Amino acid sequence: MQQLGKLRFPVAFYGGDYNPEQWMAEENGRQVWLEDLRLMRKAGVNLVSLGVFSWAALQPAEDRFVFEWLDQILELLAAQQIFVCLGTATAAQPAWLSAAYPDVLPVDEAGVRHKPGVRLNYCPTNEQFRRLSQNLVRKLAERYREHSALLLWHVSNEYGPACYCEYCAMRFRGWLQQRYGSLEELNRRWITTIWSRTYTSWEQVQPPSSIGEHSLQALQLDYQRFLSDMNLEGYLGEAAILREVTPHIPVMTNFHGLTRHMDYFSWAPHQDIISWDSYPRHNSTPDMVAFFYDMMRCLKHNQPWLLLEQTPSQVQWHQENPLKRPGVMRLQSYQALAHGSNAIMFFQWRQARGGREMYHGAMVSHAGHEQTRIFQEVAALGAELKLLEPALLETQMQARVALLMSWPNWWAVENRHTPSRHFNYIAELQHYYRALWQRNIAVDIISPDQALDNYQLVIAPLFTMVSEEQGAAIEQYVKEGGTFLTTYFSGMIDESHRAWLGGFPGPLRRTLGIWVEEFDPLPEGKTNTLFCLQEADDWSGSYSCERWCDIVHLEGAQTLAVFGQDFYAGRPAITENHYGLGQAFYVATRPEAAGIDALINMLQSRLGLTAPLLVPRGVEVTRREGKITAYFLLNHLPQEQYVSLPRPMRDVLTQQVYEQEMQLPPHGVAILIPLYQ
Amino acid sequence: MQQLGKLRFPVAFYGGDYNPEQWMAEENGRQVWLEDLRLMRKAGVNLVSLGVFSWAALQPAEDRFVFEWLDQILELLAAQQIFVCLGTATAAQPAWLSAAYPDVLPVDEAGVRHKPGVRLNYCPTNEQFRRLSQNLVRKLAERYREHSALLLWHVSNEYGPACYCEYCAMRFRGWLQQRYGSLEELNRRWITTIWSRTYTSWEQVQPPSSIGEHSLQALQLDYQRFLSDMNLEGYLGEAAILREVTPHIPVMTNFHGLTRHMDYFSWAPHQDIISWDSYPRHNSTPDMVAFFYDMMRCLKHNQPWLLLEQTPSQVQWHQENPLKRPGVMRLQSYQALAHGSNAIMFFQWRQARGGREMYHGAMVSHAGHEQTRIFQEVAALGAELKLLEPALLETQMQARVALLMSWPNWWAVENRHTPSRHFNYIAELQHYYRALWQRNIAVDIISPDQALDNYQLVIAPLFTMVSEEQGAAIEQYVKEGGTFLTTYFSGMIDESHRAWLGGFPGPLRRTLGIWVEEFDPLPEGKTNTLFCLQEADDWSGSYSCERWCDIVHLEGAQTLAVFGQDFYAGRPAITENHYGLGQAFYVATRPEAAGIDALINMLQSRLGLTAPLLVPRGVEVTRREGKITAYFLLNHLPQEQYVSLPRPMRDVLTQQVYEQEMQLPPHGVAILIPLYQ
Amino acid sequence: MQQLGKLRFPVAFYGGDYNPEQWMAEENGRQVWLEDLRLMRKAGVNLVSLGVFSWAALQPAEDRFVFEWLDQILELLAAQQIFVCLGTATAAQPAWLSAAYPDVLPVDEAGVRHKPGVRLNYCPTNEQFRRLSQNLVRKLAERYREHSALLLWHVSNEYGPACYCEYCAMRFRGWLQQRYGSLEELNRRWITTIWSRTYTSWEQVQPPSSIGEHSLQALQLDYQRFLSDMNLEGYLGEAAILREVTPHIPVMTNFHGLTRHMDYFSWAPHQDIISWDSYPRHNSTPDMVAFFYDMMRCLKHNQPWLLLEQTPSQVQWHQENPLKRPGVMRLQSYQALAHGSNAIMFFQWRQARGGREMYHGAMVSHAGHEQTRIFQEVAALGAELKLLEPALLETQMQARVALLMSWPNWWAVENRHTPSRHFNYIAELQHYYRALWQRNIAVDIISPDQALDNYQLVIAPLFTMVSEEQGAAIEQYVKEGGTFLTTYFSGMIDESHRAWLGGFPGPLRRTLGIWVEEFDPLPEGKTNTLFCLQEADDWSGSYSCERWCDIVHLEGAQTLAVFGQDFYAGRPAITENHYGLGQAFYVATRPEAAGIDALINMLQSRLGLTAPLLVPRGVEVTRREGKITAYFLLNHLPQEQYVSLPRPMRDVLTQQVYEQEMQLPPHGVAILIPLYQ
Repeated sequence: MQQLGKLRFPVAFYGGDYNPEQWMAEENGRQVWLEDLRLMRKAGVNLVSLGVFSWAALQPAEDRFVFEWLDQILELLAAQQIFVCLGTATAAQPAWLSAAYPDVLPVDEAGVRHKPGVRLNYCPTNEQFRRLSQNLVRKLAERYREHSALLLWHVSNEYGPACYCEYCAMRFRGWLQQRYGSLEELNRRWITTIWSRTYTSWEQVQPPSSIGEHSLQALQLDYQRFLSDMNLEGYLGEAAILREVTPHIPVMTNFHGLTRHMDYFSWAPHQDIISWDSYPRHNSTPDMVAFFYDMMRCLKHNQPWLLLEQTPSQVQWHQENPLKRPGVMRLQSYQALAHGSNAIMFFQWRQARGGREMYHGAMVSHAGHEQTRIFQEVAALGAELKLLEPALLETQMQARVALLMSWPNWWAVENRHTPSRHFNYIAELQHYYRALWQRNIAVDIISPDQALDNYQLVIAPLFTMVSEEQGAAIEQYVKEGGTFLTTYFSGMIDESHRAWLGGFPGPLRRTLGIWVEEFDPLPEGKTNTLFCLQEADDWSGSYSCERWCDIVHLEGAQTLAVFGQDFYAGRPAITENHYGLGQAFYVATRPEAAGIDALINMLQSRLGLTAPLLVPRGVEVTRREGKITAYFLLNHLPQEQYVSLPRPMRDVLTQQVYEQEMQLPPHGVAILIPLYQ
Repeated sequence: MQQLGKLRFPVAFYGGDYNPEQWMAEENGRQVWLEDLRLMRKAGVNLVSLGVFSWAALQPAEDRFVFEWLDQILELLAAQQIFVCLGTATAAQPAWLSAAYPDVLPVDEAGVRHKPGVRLNYCPTNEQFRRLSQNLVRKLAERYREHSALLLWHVSNEYGPACYCEYCAMRFRGWLQQRYGSLEELNRRWITTIWSRTYTSWEQVQPPSSIGEHSLQALQLDYQRFLSDMNLEGYLGEAAILREVTPHIPVMTNFHGLTRHMDYFSWAPHQDIISWDSYPRHNSTPDMVAFFYDMMRCLKHNQPWLLLEQTPSQVQWHQENPLKRPGVMRLQSYQALAHGSNAIMFFQWRQARGGREMYHGAMVSHAGHEQTRIFQEVAALGAELKLLEPALLETQMQARVALLMSWPNWWAVENRHTPSRHFNYIAELQHYYRALWQRNIAVDIISPDQALDNYQLVIAPLFTMVSEEQGAAIEQYVKEGGTFLTTYFSGMIDESHRAWLGGFPGPLRRTLGIWVEEFDPLPEGKTNTLFCLQEADDWSGSYSCERWCDIVHLEGAQTLAVFGQDFYAGRPAITENHYGLGQAFYVATRPEAAGIDALINMLQSRLGLTAPLLVPRGVEVTRREGKITAYFLLNHLPQEQYVSLPRPMRDVLTQQVYEQEMQLPPHGVAILIPLYQ
Repeated sequence: MQQLGKLRFPVAFYGGDYNPEQWMAEENGRQVWLEDLRLMRKAGVNLVSLGVFSWAALQPAEDRFVFEWLDQILELLAAQQIFVCLGTATAAQPAWLSAAYPDVLPVDEAGVRHKPGVRLNYCPTNEQFRRLSQNLVRKLAERYREHSALLLWHVSNEYGPACYCEYCAMRFRGWLQQRYGSLEELNRRWITTIWSRTYTSWEQVQPPSSIGEHSLQALQLDYQRFLSDMNLEGYLGEAAILREVTPHIPVMTNFHGLTRHMDYFSWAPHQDIISWDSYPRHNSTPDMVAFFYDMMRCLKHNQPWLLLEQTPSQVQWHQENPLKRPGVMRLQSYQALAHGSNAIMFFQWRQARGGREMYHGAMVSHAGHEQTRIFQEVAALGAELKLLEPALLETQMQARVALLMSWPNWWAVENRHTPSRHFNYIAELQHYYRALWQRNIAVDIISPDQALDNYQLVIAPLFTMVSEEQGAAIEQYVKEGGTFLTTYFSGMIDESHRAWLGGFPGPLRRTLGIWVEEFDPLPEGKTNTLFCLQEADDWSGSYSCERWCDIVHLEGAQTLAVFGQDFYAGRPAITENHYGLGQAFYVATRPEAAGIDALINMLQSRLGLTAPLLVPRGVEVTRREGKITAYFLLNHLPQEQYVSLPRPMRDVLTQQVYEQEMQLPPHGVAILIPLYQ
């Protein structure tokens, strides 16, 4: 028996979303089900996500429940030893529910109540929704608590509803009272004297609105916190029932996006396992895929996670939806394993006949049979995954470099009242991540509220919102020998969006040994140049930079690079401060990729950061460690690549042994285990 | 006396919209009217559209009617032998009506009821609007039933109102009950199990909404059908009264756009004559003008139609509204005749002093006199049209090639949940039409529900929605010797927007002898290449293609061209299937214009399709046949062109006889009749 | 004692917006105030705008007023001899007010009532808002009537609210009754017969609406007039109280934008002094800054005005907000003086800690101390301004060239139903202004309703709306010897937006000696060419032109230039008409800048227009005259420039005397006074 609420991986899980109820109304519905099971066996499926959108099928009226079809499909699956990740079915309420309880429907920022339809179309604080969804969850849990196929609970789906109704406003006031205690304190923190916005009674506090208060940043910020909390509260309401009725079954909801509305760092502690829906765009680079994989890996500190959804072929929601090229689905699947996942799942098993996602790819296409390229690739991968030995699935990836990421900071950076409208927080994080990834330096993506002491290097791009406590923790980290790097537009505001007075970057100023007197947001298309000073083997050259230039005063720091143009030519563009036993770097602009690479190169050389293996550029390598050590090699190039090995290794996927060198085919993959651990 | 409800053409009709009530309030209103009549005589006007927006002038209050001004103007016109196309005046309700019956105003997709103003601003199902408009129509019909000037009824104007109010919702449910019988059947056809959208009572069925259900394609589709039907029902309500009171007077409304909302194929049977408002953009090519002319010609199977509106000079509603260059208005007018029209009309007679259309061109400009270039061109054309002999007006154009066009298919192709957002259905039809037009091959534009047996070649681009019946009809057509061509993204869905299972292109698969396993929508700017196989005189070369590439399996068909790049390089891009006595072609991508031209060239050569005359490129020629045969020559180039004639012909417009060759001036026109028919 | 309600300038005023209440809630609030005063002294501040957004701080509840903090700060300021421009604090109502009187909130064009928040968020006709704001104004006036620091009243801030509520509709009807007398007359003027829009009762008249009547230009136009009037009425309500209680204190509100909603020509007579908030974009050219300065100067006929707001460094509301380069703030400040201002003020004194404008630059930055580049520049300018002698502040600028500008014309030109959507009225005015500015020819910007007789040259670009009276005044002006120039799309409509009949340009036709038969709006990117005829030393060459070409008939005028392309090649593009003792020019297109420059060159040479001094291009020079004459030299180039002087002069700023030549540093400034006046 497994540990309470913790998922174990005797095998790598493989499968997809399964919506058999879509075929019940078809004349040959039962045959479709049987064909599903035949094909699942053929594809190596051992886990399906079931019932995610089945509320209407399970409860066709408030007082009527229909579980028979679910009983049947669960039996069929159990008979094939296929496990089930069972949905609580609450991501889309039935039509009868919206009709009977119209307040369930959300009100938007303009104050308009929405109408029934689509999905995730409910107010996240609504009491009726909570009551009815929890009622369904209890029925499901009690019915299937002992079912042998039940492996995992899947609460709702891709959370994210927002609402601005009166009830939300009331709950928001309560949330604010909790946070600030008094209206006076709220007024003080939000600086409401500006424009006579002072609140003199709690009732005056309203959610932000596109046709009302939309320029008080602190209100926006707190409402975003509130909405994330209210969704989480909804999740916890369902999860509590599941944990009560089935304490042995892990509970989670799936993350996606990366959604800007939900602070996954606050959600993660309440997930028994992290799961991720991975939908890179056709022009996403492999490092962008890896970035999110690493974020998922870190949300629960290297616990294995689930790649819960990806498309085997194409999606349908972009302007244009090209196919994944042959081999790319397999490559991205192994890349997930390389970054700590132990499961590969798809949306969805069988392509839908109608609805918005009817052209979304699936393991079984509209053709309905196995004679398709996609099914062949899917089945081949399913067969391959069976080769992964249990010891391998118990390994974990470890990193000595951390990238700081924070949702409230994201909201602040992309707030529309900042001095530049061109900020893209995630892209800025990826700008640094990419340089590390290209060098195969493992990176954790963590919250600034987490402990830093395990890291040699901490990087915090666009770290504009820094609390007193966060500033102190970073200072302590550097004092004790850590290396910290941050950039322009950092240390500007506190957690209530109040400017730090006395000199930017506020609580990071002493650590960085600088004062940023002014900043110059550059118009689109305008650039400046960075010239490296103190040239050395690992630090030289000049680089273009854009978007923003700070005017920096040294207060103990040294200049590593200067600006080349404009009235601040010759002034510091990159600085380094030796502080305590550590050092702190400041990058006062947005360098081009080559500039970031030069920076990372210098840090790598100074800190002795190493890659697991030395591989050609374009090949990714990660290391998972445990009782055994495994090297994941991923060739992202359409040409074959040769990798030198420091010692003999065996490829888990082929069982072939390589002594000194191995060849990776185009888009090829290997999982190497040293012959002698 | 003419045939009941059928318009005869003793002459070509000529004139325009006439709104004399706009000038009544002016001090010199009466003089303006008299001047109008003097100038009309000068311009050769013999038909005016009267009263189209006169509701408020005819009925200033619910219980008060004022017909005297209309009596007067009708008398004045009759005295000049000018016929009247009399508007029912119901396209814009008076202010008092909207004030007294606020439910007349439409509700938009976001659920907001609109306010009074503009035109066509009413709910198409509203009972009060129906009652009041029909009441006015009856009064008009009864008053003018015997008036000698009355030639034709003009119901409303450019139909197209949409509404999403509660009453429309109720009517929609009735419409659906008619269509599907039961809610179970509706759920099955719309596949509402997806996202728990299952309806458990009819009241839950709501119109689509931008803030509600906007992603159930079948709902969208049926609501579009419903809106077209409700507008048609409104039209038929007025028409029934007119047909009752004045059975001898033809009834019609004018088509325009091409409007996406109204399915003109379902409207056409209820028109006694087709009329078209032609407003090409300044950068429209002549084939685009001809395309719509041909569509109008075909709506009632080659019956003569009316060019009811065009501007003599410029419009005012585009971003920029350049003048028609000298000669272009005449050229486009004769182009209408060349494609089967027997009338040339303008919007409007006299330029308005105010309102949204005050800068819209008119036969008589704000200057108010005849000393303008525009009036001179108008008067010259009026004089010229008198030369057209009655026998000529009885001729018709005939085509052996059909282009399939369908409104529901249009709605489906441009639905926002398709795999590519770059579809433009009309542009795709025109892409094929253009190649035929350039070769002066006459084309009919027909519905896929019409009989195909008269055609040598049937082309159905982007034919995504194909019913079982349509598929069978095409199969039969090919079996019996027809040639059919269709393209990528065809045969995907049935009439309820359900994917065809078992293999695309669904009901066309056997006829085409192929199976489309996958499709690859290309990002904007990305192309592939077509390489012709089985090269021959009429088939060779390589062509760029874009937007979409299918991955095609042959099931009996042969490959005519293959893709040049990507992982499907070498796979079929164009196929040909010999089936029964006929053949079926499939074009798995969007070739550049030269590629389409190569295809049409090959088909022309194999099927022996011919032009009426051999003319230089840039000269258009059509043939109208009846008791006499007439060749319409239109020089769309700004240079003069020489045309060889197979036998001696006489130009109707100049009475000149040409033995072997004629010269067309820049933008010149000729109507040639062989000397010996 | 100064003249009643007229501001005198014993010194140049210097300072900024001061919002001390923002710091009261901070722990060290009192210290911040004392530090403010220390720094103000250091910066040379002698005037602050106080209380502009203090309503909530002054009146925390309807029945409770708190003036103590304002008393204190006024005392502190008075003690430092710092004057106060006291805000009436009514630009943003408190939260309690919106909560108690929800009708105060405005309704937008779609009929949606807005929610509390931001600023200027009230209905401009609302009676409760009027009552409560006037009540506060009376309390302020009575309390501070005798305060020694009180120099000037600042009513509200940057007026501009719009509303479309029922009460506004009612007021609008009253306004229309005043204007038109009867509904019949309104129907006649608005030409409501079009599209059956005739009103049969006053209640049917509604404000324009995005979901209702949005295409009746006359309604749009009158509603814009009405909104400007209603805002003005609100201003006058507050001003009346101030003038009653403190007749000796001048009253004004600040202008900004240039806002399209408020007709400043109708507001100006009610201002005791004009004040301007100057916020050029980072890519605005110096002539664009000067253009608005000149407009402010002319609003009250050369009376000195106040530069009430500018940023010392950067704003935060554009897509990108770069810093003003060193020296540019000083240069733009002196440019204001050069164009008649006697005060330089900033928004704001101390940078805000939060809210939408927290990143807007300020004299004292978030750093909070004086060791910043910005504070140093501010303090240096403050010291320098003390050098300006009183006699200098009594001088005025004079111009012999006028540019006609009119708000109703602006509304008409940019109405969305014009034949081209590319009109930008202000840009067109600036297109002509720029050519004059580059030659340092002083220009007044005046309303077409003002007297013209003082001017040698009057230019009226895009003068589409011309009343009978305006046309007659221009005719008289030319008859008596004036020179008038207008352009395409002029003389099209009367003040009710009715087309002029009989021939364009309507009431300007006789004066110009032309008839514009047709116009050809050119598509974006398409150009024609102007060829100069009657070549002379001051008139030659060929120039590109765009956007629009008129087809012009000469009716007495001569052709100065012809079009080079298209079917109107060779027809007049620029004409000149000798009429009475004067002459009138017509420019039938939009020439490129070089073409405008050629035109202005010709006019300058013929009319003998001169610059105050001959200076290199890029150097601006203006002359202010009074008891003394002063030349303001402004080097807008980043290179030093040499200026030859006709006689010896002294630079007020340096007290240095130049005999024949002086050198201006990059971005340098001089105020030269001839040694012997």
